[in-house]
Amino acid sequence: MTHPTTKRIADSTVRRLSMYLRYLEELDGSGQATASSDALAHLCLTTPAQVRKDLSFFGSFGKRGLGYPVHELTVRLREILGLGHAWQVVIVGAGKIGSALAEYRGFRQRGFQVVGVYDKNPDKIGRAWGDATVRDIAQLPADVQSQRVDIAVLAIPSDDAQDVVDRIVEAGIRAILNFAPTQLHVPSQIAVKTVNMAMELEGLSFALTNRAD
Amino acid sequence: MTHPTTKRIADSTVRRLSMYLRYLEELDGSGQATASSDALAHLCLTTPAQVRKDLSFFGSFGKRGLGYPVHELTVRLREILGLGHAWQVVIVGAGKIGSALAEYRGFRQRGFQVVGVYDKNPDKIGRAWGDATVRDIAQLPADVQSQRVDIAVLAIPSDDAQDVVDRIVEAGIRAILNFAPTQLHVPSQIAVKTVNMAMELEGLSFALTNRAD
Repeated sequence: MTHPTTKRIADSTVRRLSMYLRYLEELDGSGQATASSDALAHLCLTTPAQVRKDLSFFGSFGKRGLGYPVHELTVRLREILGLGHAWQVVIVGAGKIGSALAEYRGFRQRGFQVVGVYDKNPDKIGRAWGDATVRDIAQLPADVQSQRVDIAVLAIPSDDAQDVVDRIVEAGIRAILNFAPTQLHVPSQIAVKTVNMAMELEGLSFALTNRAD
Repeated sequence: MTHPTTKRIADSTVRRLSMYLRYLEELDGSGQATASSDALAHLCLTTPAQVRKDLSFFGSFGKRGLGYPVHELTVRLREILGLGHAWQVVIVGAGKIGSALAEYRGFRQRGFQVVGVYDKNPDKIGRAWGDATVRDIAQLPADVQSQRVDIAVLAIPSDDAQDVVDRIVEAGIRAILNFAPTQLHVPSQIAVKTVNMAMELEGLSFALTNRAD
C-alpha cells in the first residue's frame, strides 16, 4: 500500500506520529474511547496545534470538542507507519548491541523479524546466536538473492561501516539501522536511521559543562 | 569552566559539533594539518556555510583560503563538549542494553566512567556485573550523598521509567541518558537525551511503506 500524500512528510513528523501511537496504544489498552489534542500534546511534549496539524495530513479524525477516537486513530497510525508488515531484518555484527536489539521486546512487537546474523570475524562465524547461526558477511549478497531482506541493522565499528554499507546497498537492501558512530553515505533512495550513542553522550557532556549553575 | 556564549546553542548544533569532532580526530590521527569547511561539510552531510556558522560561535578558527587548523580545532571542540571531564555514571537497569553500553568503547573514550549499577529485581541485586556489584535501586539516593554521580543511564522498561526518573532527579542527578521508549517529564534544568530504538524502527518502517517504488 502506498500513501501518495505522505511522501513529503518530515522525519520530525514521523517521530511525533510514533509518540502519539505509543500513548494511544496505552489509552486503547486501558479502554479509553477518546483523547483530546491537549492530552496528546502534553504527553508528547508538543502543542495541541502541532498535534492537529500532524494528524490532519492523514485525513480528518477528531471532531471539534469530542477529541480523537483512540482505537480508530491507533489502527490508522499503525497502518501509516507500516507496522502491519512483517519486516525481515539481518543483523550485521554479532556483538552485544546486536544481541540486545534482537532480544528487545519492542523489536518483535513492531513486526521486525531477525532472519540472519552476519559477522566478518572467523571466531564468530558458525556460532549459534539465538535461533540463528552467525554467517560470513561475504555471503550476504548471495543470501539476499534467495531470501527477502528489508532492513540491515549495522552494529559494527565505525572503521568498517561505510565499506559494509556499500555491500549492503549493492545487495539490494533498502533500509539501514546504523549503530556505528559515523555518518554513512548512501544513495538517496536508501532509508538510514542512525542511533548514535556517542553523540547523545556528548550532548549530555555539553549540557553538564555549560549548565547555568 | 563555563562558556557564557554557548548557553543558547541548539541541540542540532551540538550534534554537528560532535560530528565535526569525529572527523577532525580522524584527520588529526592521520597527521593532516588543515581542513576546509567544504571537506567538513561533505563528511558531515551539511553545507560549508553551516560549518562556518557553527564554528564561528566559538571564536575565529579558520583563515580564509587556508582552512581550519585540525589539531587546534580538535582540542577546542573537546573542551567545548566537556570531554576533558571524568563524568561519573550510574546505570539503572542491569540488562543487556546497560551491559552493551558499559562495554561500549566510545563510552570510556569520552570520559564516562561507570561507578554503579542498580536494579529493582531481587534476582539481580548482589550479582557481579563487570567490576561492579548490582545494588538495590532504593539505595541510589543514599549512595549519591557519598559519591558524586553526574549522569544516570536509564535502561529499564517504559512502565517504570517515569517513577525511576523522579527518584533520580530527587537524588540530585542532573543528566539522564534514556533508553526507555517513552518521553520523560523532568524539570527544565535536567538534561535528558533519549535513544529511542522503537522510534527509529518505526521511521524505517514508514520509509519502507511509503517509498516511491
